[in-house]
Amino acid sequence: MGRSDLERISRFFLPKSIAIIGVSRKPGKIGHEILRNIKLSGYEGRVYPVNTSGESILGYKTYKSVEELEAGTVDLAIIAVPAESTESVMRGLVSKRVPAVVVISSGFSEVGNFELESKIVSIARASGMRLIGPNTFGIFCSKSRMNATFGPNYVLPGKTAFITQSGALGLALMDWTTEERYGVSAIVSIGNKADVDDADLLDFLAQDVNTASVLVYMEGLKNGRKFINSARKTVRAKPLIIIKAGTSKKGAVAASSHTGSIAGQDRVFSAAIKEAGVMRAGSMTQAFDWIQAINENPVPRGENIVIVTNGGGIGVLATDRCEDYGINLMEIPKDLKDELRKNVPSFGSLKNPIDMTANADDAIYGRVLSILVNRKDVHGIVALFCQTANIDAQLVAQAIVSLRRGEVGLGAEEDSKPITIAFIGGRQAQAAYSRMIQRKFAAYPTAERAVDGMFALIQRYRAMKDRHTSSARGKNLC
Amino acid sequence: MGRSDLERISRFFLPKSIAIIGVSRKPGKIGHEILRNIKLSGYEGRVYPVNTSGESILGYKTYKSVEELEAGTVDLAIIAVPAESTESVMRGLVSKRVPAVVVISSGFSEVGNFELESKIVSIARASGMRLIGPNTFGIFCSKSRMNATFGPNYVLPGKTAFITQSGALGLALMDWTTEERYGVSAIVSIGNKADVDDADLLDFLAQDVNTASVLVYMEGLKNGRKFINSARKTVRAKPLIIIKAGTSKKGAVAASSHTGSIAGQDRVFSAAIKEAGVMRAGSMTQAFDWIQAINENPVPRGENIVIVTNGGGIGVLATDRCEDYGINLMEIPKDLKDELRKNVPSFGSLKNPIDMTANADDAIYGRVLSILVNRKDVHGIVALFCQTANIDAQLVAQAIVSLRRGEVGLGAEEDSKPITIAFIGGRQAQAAYSRMIQRKFAAYPTAERAVDGMFALIQRYRAMKDRHTSSARGKNLC
Repeated sequence: MGRSDLERISRFFLPKSIAIIGVSRKPGKIGHEILRNIKLSGYEGRVYPVNTSGESILGYKTYKSVEELEAGTVDLAIIAVPAESTESVMRGLVSKRVPAVVVISSGFSEVGNFELESKIVSIARASGMRLIGPNTFGIFCSKSRMNATFGPNYVLPGKTAFITQSGALGLALMDWTTEERYGVSAIVSIGNKADVDDADLLDFLAQDVNTASVLVYMEGLKNGRKFINSARKTVRAKPLIIIKAGTSKKGAVAASSHTGSIAGQDRVFSAAIKEAGVMRAGSMTQAFDWIQAINENPVPRGENIVIVTNGGGIGVLATDRCEDYGINLMEIPKDLKDELRKNVPSFGSLKNPIDMTANADDAIYGRVLSILVNRKDVHGIVALFCQTANIDAQLVAQAIVSLRRGEVGLGAEEDSKPITIAFIGGRQAQAAYSRMIQRKFAAYPTAERAVDGMFALIQRYRAMKDRHTSSARGKNLC
Repeated sequence: MGRSDLERISRFFLPKSIAIIGVSRKPGKIGHEILRNIKLSGYEGRVYPVNTSGESILGYKTYKSVEELEAGTVDLAIIAVPAESTESVMRGLVSKRVPAVVVISSGFSEVGNFELESKIVSIARASGMRLIGPNTFGIFCSKSRMNATFGPNYVLPGKTAFITQSGALGLALMDWTTEERYGVSAIVSIGNKADVDDADLLDFLAQDVNTASVLVYMEGLKNGRKFINSARKTVRAKPLIIIKAGTSKKGAVAASSHTGSIAGQDRVFSAAIKEAGVMRAGSMTQAFDWIQAINENPVPRGENIVIVTNGGGIGVLATDRCEDYGINLMEIPKDLKDELRKNVPSFGSLKNPIDMTANADDAIYGRVLSILVNRKDVHGIVALFCQTANIDAQLVAQAIVSLRRGEVGLGAEEDSKPITIAFIGGRQAQAAYSRMIQRKFAAYPTAERAVDGMFALIQRYRAMKDRHTSSARGKNLC
């Protein structure tokens, strides 16, 4: 992707002005909701609603038709007219030299109307205009404070960009992220991918400083090679997580009747994205668990992981899960054991997992974690907590929080370690868990999910090591 | 297990009287907390606290020593004295003809003190007394309103019995069940399993009418054959779910340092419990998701499952998961398609998953589900809902609730079908989800977990079919 391609794609995320074509005055109608969301999100560029009646809507001056817009003034156009009117609207936008268009309208390839879809794509391509959609719910970008979607009107700003091929799932997750306090840097409903595809968006997001990680929900893929190239570039800059639906035979059929795209040969795709360092999540829960671990932690400097627990049982469960994932539980060296022995109750275990027993209170958690944080040979910590009668979960949470020195992880910024934490139990444990989330820690309600979070960090460590190695090799070849 | 064995085990769950040995007057001390929980839970039998100072505690008359108790009056004794005093207490209890003892005290095989452990077991066995523990947090039984644990003082009564080898995890989950509104019929902290083991408890729980399903958290197993026999008997009566920790090499080592038990050869164990019809969960989340589906639904009468969704994407994800689990997505027959066509928006898909599109409202959900409920050839439904702007999740929940006629599942009691439901989205979806949980439906926050719930029901269907077949075969042999 050349400089000017990137420039055009950037208009979708950072437009200086937006036209919305097909804005009803009636609340509830899609065009109206998009305009309302643009207003509520605090977008500061110029806004041009186009409505045949030509009245003012939501305080914005409206335009009777695309023809009334001044050529060269619109950066991004959102089309929310019926499918049959899109062709003429597109021609109008081309004449006004609009570089980027999102077609919200449905009724294209997803219902068998391939002809109309290729028509609007041809119009766009002939003029160098780029097109997202059709059949999308729009685009959100936290940097430009632009919520050009008909989804929820409030979205928390954050570090992760989310590309979704499914509209309904995307809308539901958009809603869910805010409720669960996950922030996003961008959400793109990519729809039928008639022109702009995942790869185009990745090229932009890879270099976007506001995006620290990218999540792609994908059903079908048209150009596998292009995607892998962009994925590889993205992984060099930041973690890329994919949920690929339609991996089963029946799932592929369902995906094809849903979006008209072909799910493709999963095995080939799997191998290629793995090689590229992409992290493939098995479920939405896993994807968000991974993102949380990644966003709130530094990348570990190695694979020596230590589990610390006050419950032997969850220590064992976590150990099993580590082995499933190929996570290396560090052999605790003698000098570390000696240091730990002074702080772990005598009935406990100094093997990894370190079982501090149910007698461990917040002071013991604090001391043991502090010892581990100050060891160069420990690269990551999974801290597990079971609510028992004699221990205050909030104090344990506080003990962990007070070990943070930088912005993420534990310890001083320049030598910070990743930590994932499970708080298991009822009201108290759940309150402690919420507190940790608010304090920007990767906290989870079960031991397995805390291990899952650490697994994401290990994957990221490996991807960066591999990338580093291969780019070094590349240099040798020159 | 003979009649009298069962009778003795039943004393643990349904004692007519309880003695607690080692009750401090000090709140926070274990013996005190157990007495307090027994009082708060509303236990109606006689209670005999034993305390050397002999004063009254929490309004109960106390006894200075075991010797003061009248022989033959105590059904169940709870021992909460230091390990070194347990031997003499045991001898005293034997002389009073106490049939059942729970040893809360720790400091036995779990810390290498095998000698003391076999001593107290010998004392028990010589007199026919049964012993749970040592190293446990106690026992809870909803039927006898007895919370003889030092865990949370409020536990919701319900249908599932929970046996746990891990104390801390058990306590945390005990706490969590109430917070999440999961009810339990019994909780047993089984500790070191020096005498009573999982198999003994299963023999009781299999025939206990208050228990509809059993969950066992297990790290090690001493007598595999005995367990499999009891598991097989249990499965004939009700679903049995096991979480077996220590399946990995390092996990097995951790389990052994935690409970002193040998994790055993996992592959052999796996095959044996599978053959016995036991359901083995991979995580706590999965185990509880399974239990929820089982407790709130009838067993399906076949394997024809239909997915209904308003989001193509989650339909595809759910389909993938079904294929992973070997769940049969029914081929929709022509007459059913014709019936559905009148109710599903024209852009939707009548293939399975049935995609009603984002235009589906509560009326459409209601009609489509009602059609499926009335079909004999549909055996189970997975209903998925994505929160979108134009649909009220609560109304969809209400539409589903109104299709219930009996106590569980959908449709009339005599022909009820299982349903698992996902509500995906923010505040509205989460409120609808909570409402469904309150109304005793198996509801989940993701599509994958709703499929997981249905998987549990399919497993139960298969186990019952197999059991039925093998017992029929048995008859032929006679």
